[in-house]
Amino acid sequence: MTDKALPTIQELMAKPSTDIVDSLKGIYEHSAWVAESLVKNDISSIQSITELATAMQQIVDDSSEEQKLALLQAHPDLGAKVAHLQTLTKESQQEQSSAGLHTMNGKEVETFHSQNNQYKDKFQFPFILAVRNASKHTVLSALKGRLPNSYQHEFVAAISQVHKIAWMRLLQIVDTTNSPGFLTCHVLDTANGCPAANMKITLTKLSEPNAGVIIGEFVTNSDGRLEGGPALKGPTFQVGIYEWTFYAGDYFASKGAYTSGQPFLDVIPIRFGIDNPDDHYHVPLLVSPWSFSTYRGS
Amino acid sequence: MTDKALPTIQELMAKPSTDIVDSLKGIYEHSAWVAESLVKNDISSIQSITELATAMQQIVDDSSEEQKLALLQAHPDLGAKVAHLQTLTKESQQEQSSAGLHTMNGKEVETFHSQNNQYKDKFQFPFILAVRNASKHTVLSALKGRLPNSYQHEFVAAISQVHKIAWMRLLQIVDTTNSPGFLTCHVLDTANGCPAANMKITLTKLSEPNAGVIIGEFVTNSDGRLEGGPALKGPTFQVGIYEWTFYAGDYFASKGAYTSGQPFLDVIPIRFGIDNPDDHYHVPLLVSPWSFSTYRGS
Amino acid sequence: MTDKALPTIQELMAKPSTDIVDSLKGIYEHSAWVAESLVKNDISSIQSITELATAMQQIVDDSSEEQKLALLQAHPDLGAKVAHLQTLTKESQQEQSSAGLHTMNGKEVETFHSQNNQYKDKFQFPFILAVRNASKHTVLSALKGRLPNSYQHEFVAAISQVHKIAWMRLLQIVDTTNSPGFLTCHVLDTANGCPAANMKITLTKLSEPNAGVIIGEFVTNSDGRLEGGPALKGPTFQVGIYEWTFYAGDYFASKGAYTSGQPFLDVIPIRFGIDNPDDHYHVPLLVSPWSFSTYRGS
Amino acid sequence: MTDKALPTIQELMAKPSTDIVDSLKGIYEHSAWVAESLVKNDISSIQSITELATAMQQIVDDSSEEQKLALLQAHPDLGAKVAHLQTLTKESQQEQSSAGLHTMNGKEVETFHSQNNQYKDKFQFPFILAVRNASKHTVLSALKGRLPNSYQHEFVAAISQVHKIAWMRLLQIVDTTNSPGFLTCHVLDTANGCPAANMKITLTKLSEPNAGVIIGEFVTNSDGRLEGGPALKGPTFQVGIYEWTFYAGDYFASKGAYTSGQPFLDVIPIRFGIDNPDDHYHVPLLVSPWSFSTYRGS
Repeated sequence: MTDKALPTIQELMAKPSTDIVDSLKGIYEHSAWVAESLVKNDISSIQSITELATAMQQIVDDSSEEQKLALLQAHPDLGAKVAHLQTLTKESQQEQSSAGLHTMNGKEVETFHSQNNQYKDKFQFPFILAVRNASKHTVLSALKGRLPNSYQHEFVAAISQVHKIAWMRLLQIVDTTNSPGFLTCHVLDTANGCPAANMKITLTKLSEPNAGVIIGEFVTNSDGRLEGGPALKGPTFQVGIYEWTFYAGDYFASKGAYTSGQPFLDVIPIRFGIDNPDDHYHVPLLVSPWSFSTYRGS
Repeated sequence: MTDKALPTIQELMAKPSTDIVDSLKGIYEHSAWVAESLVKNDISSIQSITELATAMQQIVDDSSEEQKLALLQAHPDLGAKVAHLQTLTKESQQEQSSAGLHTMNGKEVETFHSQNNQYKDKFQFPFILAVRNASKHTVLSALKGRLPNSYQHEFVAAISQVHKIAWMRLLQIVDTTNSPGFLTCHVLDTANGCPAANMKITLTKLSEPNAGVIIGEFVTNSDGRLEGGPALKGPTFQVGIYEWTFYAGDYFASKGAYTSGQPFLDVIPIRFGIDNPDDHYHVPLLVSPWSFSTYRGS
Repeated sequence: MTDKALPTIQELMAKPSTDIVDSLKGIYEHSAWVAESLVKNDISSIQSITELATAMQQIVDDSSEEQKLALLQAHPDLGAKVAHLQTLTKESQQEQSSAGLHTMNGKEVETFHSQNNQYKDKFQFPFILAVRNASKHTVLSALKGRLPNSYQHEFVAAISQVHKIAWMRLLQIVDTTNSPGFLTCHVLDTANGCPAANMKITLTKLSEPNAGVIIGEFVTNSDGRLEGGPALKGPTFQVGIYEWTFYAGDYFASKGAYTSGQPFLDVIPIRFGIDNPDDHYHVPLLVSPWSFSTYRGS
Repeated sequence: MTDKALPTIQELMAKPSTDIVDSLKGIYEHSAWVAESLVKNDISSIQSITELATAMQQIVDDSSEEQKLALLQAHPDLGAKVAHLQTLTKESQQEQSSAGLHTMNGKEVETFHSQNNQYKDKFQFPFILAVRNASKHTVLSALKGRLPNSYQHEFVAAISQVHKIAWMRLLQIVDTTNSPGFLTCHVLDTANGCPAANMKITLTKLSEPNAGVIIGEFVTNSDGRLEGGPALKGPTFQVGIYEWTFYAGDYFASKGAYTSGQPFLDVIPIRFGIDNPDDHYHVPLLVSPWSFSTYRGS
């Protein structure tokens, strides 16, 4: 994400059209026409990766049904990958399948091919699943879940997966280090109807780089918010997986609240993903000694 | 907890009164009178550790204000422990303070002693905090939080801490292996208003023994519950810290729900404590792709 | 709903095919072919209105894109209705528009026609909105919200609205008095981590017939549930709008919980709709003195 | 609350000490010493009713156990009121008991007197319940619930009730029209992980004056908040009972979200009390088509 060689969105958009097309031609699978259409428009207003993704998505959405179908059909068949994995040695399997697709047993492989073939017969385009490192469990249940859809419903679902893949690819080629997104928190004590003041919180990065590293330590202020503003912003606010750790047991103990010997809630982890470097992520905790909730806030 | 040498509650209650007193005399700090009062009553109806704890608690609650005050005053002064820790070598500090009280810096030690002395002056009994392995953060904020209480309020709070210590001690001396408690789960999809079927869940033990071991793997049935009944019951249902891991991202992917590239919610840990081997713990998950909550259910 | 003249689902399915077609030909707008296809299948397994709706829905979903488009195009143009309303006297307006569409002012009418025309031009089928008594606010924002959709996305959305209209029409022609659905409740005290026992609850019907009538009075048992089983079942369980009234303030007062003079939460109404006479509706309350939540449970 | 004759807190605090004592002597039942102690302190920093209440509360909390007991014992016996009500005509009963205490039947009256007598015998002070218009259900269950408490626990609970009565009385004698409190709202769509924009909301006053009057109509902005700032502030922000009405069904319909024919959630009322004219009340809605929650935010 912070690779010096990547252009910022402003740098990318300032390039000659042919260079832009060259950079973006692979965002939609084997469909350089999306990038080519893009540069024919006025792109001077595109100042963020979100705006770029939206513009390309709009081109796809506005294209004809035939073009969309061709786009779907340009995607590889997951069945070929699964079949290929079966022919490899254990070592090669692991190299080529971080998601563990190679761990499908015989019956699972059989089910997969059967349903994958039914899918292709029914819809005339390959099964597309935009889940990074999808496990065999995900693949098998997604395939089973989507097979009964009507043609039109599944067509829309597949295009939506394609847009998601495009977004993940865009994130790989643009330097988003200085994007405007940021992460905030707020803790409310729902047992006492007040902000949870003086609660210790840590923030751990779970995805690479720096997986497992505690990247922030905080104590809530009298309004239950982090002293000093956002937990992450600018270069520290990166797409990835994070985990808040809330020391709620300590907080309730210090309030003199009754909690059991082994408290029902003590150290509370909240794991969440950041997907868009342009957005404000507000990830609060509403907590009593016996219940809690969180949500994507704004 | 599963030490063969420990008696079950039935075995304990069947012993001669003097043996029972001997076993229970230390449950309330230096206050054998609680156990002695207990055996003067008809204790034949006590069939569970919960009932035993309740009976002893009732004796304390029904005792005179003088007796309760004596009970509070029988507790050691945390100030002496902190002062003692300061005199030790680093190695001895660690041995005697798993909670890290010895990591208080000079200013914190000073604050602690000042407030602890104020506490003793104001209330005429020592500061009692029934938090296993209380961190310096907990100790300092609990002390600061409770110091302004009125005498009567703090008296009640302190007795409540004493009951909690008694409960934790009871759990150490009774074999609760075959207690009737059990653990169940339920997952509801609040985005679609239906049970979350076919979601993978694992259960990990976080406290010793077997800390870090995955002790259960489940897939939800059509009603969003665990196939095959309780996740834990009988000998596997033990006091301790546990963590559900819900594969919610997989579930929503298989439903064809829109989720972002790096989903906001994917793998969801829910950490919780089990404190009472007699109770039913229902720990459900209410989840959408953008929010979740849990609670101690029944 | 309880009109004696309506057949039960069993009675309807036992009729001659021509009678069934006659009954069901209007379920999908001007599209008798759905009912005609239905009776060509083996319909002996259809034992509930849910199964009948699902079977008809499947026929539509499995039909060709041309058939679906024709179905969409068979729906009336809302624009014509709005235009017609404008020509009427105030009295006639009210008679023909319970939803207040006639209250659109000049600018709103203009916006509506402009967007409705854009919609028809873009999608080549009329704007379909399956909301009973849709207000002008709903119509205007739904139209505005759906106009930017891609053709395929809106096609799927429109078919989904058509299925919903079909369901509402089915409910008008089948006697569902003895359907198996039922309504249950559960109250959990999230401040104390226990069932809320001894809380008074009433249930009021809000839709006709019997709008405004209290149809149930309950006190929760020790597990926080309604003594005596479901609040509604059999003939009393009808499609419509309902409201629980939870006397949460009384409950917390009786627990000795601190609540403010004018409690933040006291009498808590939870309004909800029942749409399917075959389903179990579990509508619980999770409540502390300062927060509450509910959900469609199972 | 807006009676012109009432002094503001600044006007009250600026009066001569004897006048202040005269105004406040009845705030704590037959205990003018609280007000007398107050004016002996420096009260120049008291600028709000909250600060005044806190200062008086502190005086009580710091007083001796004997003084507190005398304060408790200065309260009237609810038993006498119940007994008196029984002697009245139906008409007089209604006049003297807006809460319906006179509707207790014979068995309830008997239970009440029996438990009320046990209470007085056990605690040596009368049963105090600071619930405005407490129903017989509340009185009976609070009495039953608190009777088993230990002496010290109930002493603290009773003092807490006395503080609450004091607060309610203070609100009757101070003009809080221009207090700094205000009411805000926020609606989050937990099915889609975004602010719920363009949702219609109304605010209705439920308590007198103006009970039943819609006092605000709003549409949420793109951040899910009320355009134009607080819903209530200054003179319109008054202690009382209020109800938001959220048109959530309209919102989800306009998003094209699937909702059932009779939506599970459509018009959502959230009823809440405002107790402190100095506070910020943030009363948000987290909502999907199948679940919602609210809480006292900040």
